[in-house]
Amino acid sequence: MPHVSLPEGLPGILGPLTQYPETGNALTLLANALLVHETPSLSKGDRETIASYVSYLNGCVFCSESHGGAADAHLGQPGHCRAVWASPDDAPISPRLRALLAIAARVQQSGRALSPEHVAAARALGANDRDLHDTVLIAAAFCMYNRYVDGLATTAPPAGDPAYAQMGQVLAAQGYQRGPA
Amino acid sequence: MPHVSLPEGLPGILGPLTQYPETGNALTLLANALLVHETPSLSKGDRETIASYVSYLNGCVFCSESHGGAADAHLGQPGHCRAVWASPDDAPISPRLRALLAIAARVQQSGRALSPEHVAAARALGANDRDLHDTVLIAAAFCMYNRYVDGLATTAPPAGDPAYAQMGQVLAAQGYQRGPA
Repeated sequence: MPHVSLPEGLPGILGPLTQYPETGNALTLLANALLVHETPSLSKGDRETIASYVSYLNGCVFCSESHGGAADAHLGQPGHCRAVWASPDDAPISPRLRALLAIAARVQQSGRALSPEHVAAARALGANDRDLHDTVLIAAAFCMYNRYVDGLATTAPPAGDPAYAQMGQVLAAQGYQRGPA
Repeated sequence: MPHVSLPEGLPGILGPLTQYPETGNALTLLANALLVHETPSLSKGDRETIASYVSYLNGCVFCSESHGGAADAHLGQPGHCRAVWASPDDAPISPRLRALLAIAARVQQSGRALSPEHVAAARALGANDRDLHDTVLIAAAFCMYNRYVDGLATTAPPAGDPAYAQMGQVLAAQGYQRGPA
C-alpha cells in the first residue's frame, strides 16, 4: 500500500504525478528534456537505456521495466535492456555507450565517485561534452525518480509483466505528457 | 576542473544550469515547486533544512552549504543547519521535523529503505500526506542535484566560506530564478 493516498489504477510514478501536478509538471518537463530531445550522438534509445540501467541498479522495478520497454521500442530490439542489465560488458552495444553506462553506474553510487579516468575513457571513444553532461544528469535524475517511486511505496506490475512492453511502446511514440495544471 | 566546459565564475550548479538552459529550466522549476511554494505545515525553512541535510549526507559541499544558508536565513538562526547536520536528535527542532528528517535520511539511502514504521512515526507527530510527499520528493530531488553538481566536478567555495551565508540570504529572498531560455 502506498505511504500516501494516490489515485487508483495509475501504476508507479503516474499516481504521484497526477496527485501533485505542480511538481508533476516539473518532473515531466525534465523527463522530456532528457529522454525525448535527442542529440546527434545520443539517441532516444541510448537515453532510455541509460535511464533503465540506472533504475535497475537502484532496484526500481517500475522505472527499469518501463524505460527498458521504451528503449527496446526505440531500438526495435526486444530484450535489449535485459541484456544490458545482465552485463553491459557483454551486451551488443557500442563501446561509446558502454563507456557512458560505466559513467552512469558511478553517478548512481555518488557524484563524487566519477573519476577523470572514466570521463577520459568515454572521450577517447568519441563522447563529447553534451553526451557526458546528459549521461550524468540522466543518471542523477533517475536516482531521484526511483526514490520518488519507491519512497512512496507506489504499486506497479511485477518485473517481466507484458504491460511494460506496451508502456514502452506508448512512451517511445508519445514521450512524456504534461498534465493540464 | 569540471569534467565538461562550463562558464567561468558560476559556482556549483549555476554553471550547468546556465550552460544547458533546457534542462536548467526544468531543474529550476522543480526547485521552486519544492522549496519556495511552502505549505501550512512545511515552511520554507523546514524545506531548505531537509534539502541541506540530504546534501550533507551525500557529501555535496555546494548544496549543503547554500541550502543550509537559505534555511538559516529563513529561520533567522545562523548555525541552525550545522546543528542539524551534527545530530538531528540533538538539534533544537520540532519532533515533527525530526521525524521528517529521519524519512529523508532513509530516502537518501534508497526509496526502498523507507518503512511504514517511519511513516507512522511522522504521522503520529502530525505529519500529513502533503508533508510526507514533499519530504520524500525533496530528499529524492537532492539525490539528483547533488549527483549533478559533483558528477560534473563543478567548482565551489570551500565548506564554511562566508559566501554561502550571502547566497542563502539571496535564495531566501528571491527563490530560484529561471533563465531566459
